[in-house]
Amino acid sequence: MRIILVGATGDIGKSAYKALEKGHEIITVGRTGGDYQVDVSDLNAVKILYERVGNFDAVISCAGDASFAPLAELNQKTFMVGLQQKVMGQVNLVLAGLDVISDGGSFTLTSGVLDRDPIRMGANAATANGALAGFVKSAAIEMPRGVRVNVVSPGMLDVSAARYGAWFQGHKPVSSHDVGLAYVKCVEGALTGQVVIVE
Amino acid sequence: MRIILVGATGDIGKSAYKALEKGHEIITVGRTGGDYQVDVSDLNAVKILYERVGNFDAVISCAGDASFAPLAELNQKTFMVGLQQKVMGQVNLVLAGLDVISDGGSFTLTSGVLDRDPIRMGANAATANGALAGFVKSAAIEMPRGVRVNVVSPGMLDVSAARYGAWFQGHKPVSSHDVGLAYVKCVEGALTGQVVIVE
Repeated sequence: MRIILVGATGDIGKSAYKALEKGHEIITVGRTGGDYQVDVSDLNAVKILYERVGNFDAVISCAGDASFAPLAELNQKTFMVGLQQKVMGQVNLVLAGLDVISDGGSFTLTSGVLDRDPIRMGANAATANGALAGFVKSAAIEMPRGVRVNVVSPGMLDVSAARYGAWFQGHKPVSSHDVGLAYVKCVEGALTGQVVIVE
Repeated sequence: MRIILVGATGDIGKSAYKALEKGHEIITVGRTGGDYQVDVSDLNAVKILYERVGNFDAVISCAGDASFAPLAELNQKTFMVGLQQKVMGQVNLVLAGLDVISDGGSFTLTSGVLDRDPIRMGANAATANGALAGFVKSAAIEMPRGVRVNVVSPGMLDVSAARYGAWFQGHKPVSSHDVGLAYVKCVEGALTGQVVIVE
């Protein structure tokens, strides 16, 4: 398949890349790096990206910022980061791609553990994660031409633990290899409308 | 208790009002009606609302628009309505109220059935509902002074069925009385971080 991978340079994106690079053509997209550069929070920019890429069979999104701050310090501007970047940005990849992705293609988004296992300073990310779960469940029933949509929800990755472990007290790191498998399941399998949890 | 009820004139707001009016002082807030008028999607406007109201023990939000349209017709502008109104608007009530609500007070938000039981044209609402579930679960662990936060998630109300039933094929209408009880449970009970489903 011809797979567009957005956010290929992060820890999760690398896991997806490693799991799928053999046997697929992967086109990497980043805000500043990769084969193509795009800000996914702009729907028109995503449409232009798809025109430039041409035919594709799958989109994997490992992109999307959220604000990490104590609840009492969050304000409307910082809270909107998660809604505009992690939610709207990933949803834009679906909205712009519905009509141009191959028949039977798939969109695989990325959320994370914080809506089911919250941490301090995680309310914005938890909100975004929950939003993506609601989105894929609902969007799946309106997908055309056998196109599928899912979201992978991994815990904190083993390779991220040195940087983020202090904020994820007591969270068991998940295997990057297992995270990669979740993307394989979503791209090569037949699931749709699912939150694929990696724990 | 002194309860601020946002969105008191809708079907859900009326259910909450009826269930709580005996034994509580209810201050109604609407975009155009009620004791006070405010656009909750503006955090500063919510802060000013709380200053004007003075002391309060509970906030119930039954407000929040989302866009209902086929997935293929949603765009960034229409999709952001749910994120800015139904999510950010209700979250603003919490962010602005954290420091001024009474000790042991509560915030009760409102989502809906569509993230667990989707319908055509419901993707934006489903996304908002999921977002609110993630928010309350995470925000609950950072609440100060025994303050609580929950979200009520009702199915289509019996009193709304004549207007909306055509879009909710096969959905069993839920009792408005039972919906009111869910708000009583959240305000008078001790729950926090919960999605209170009414089915």
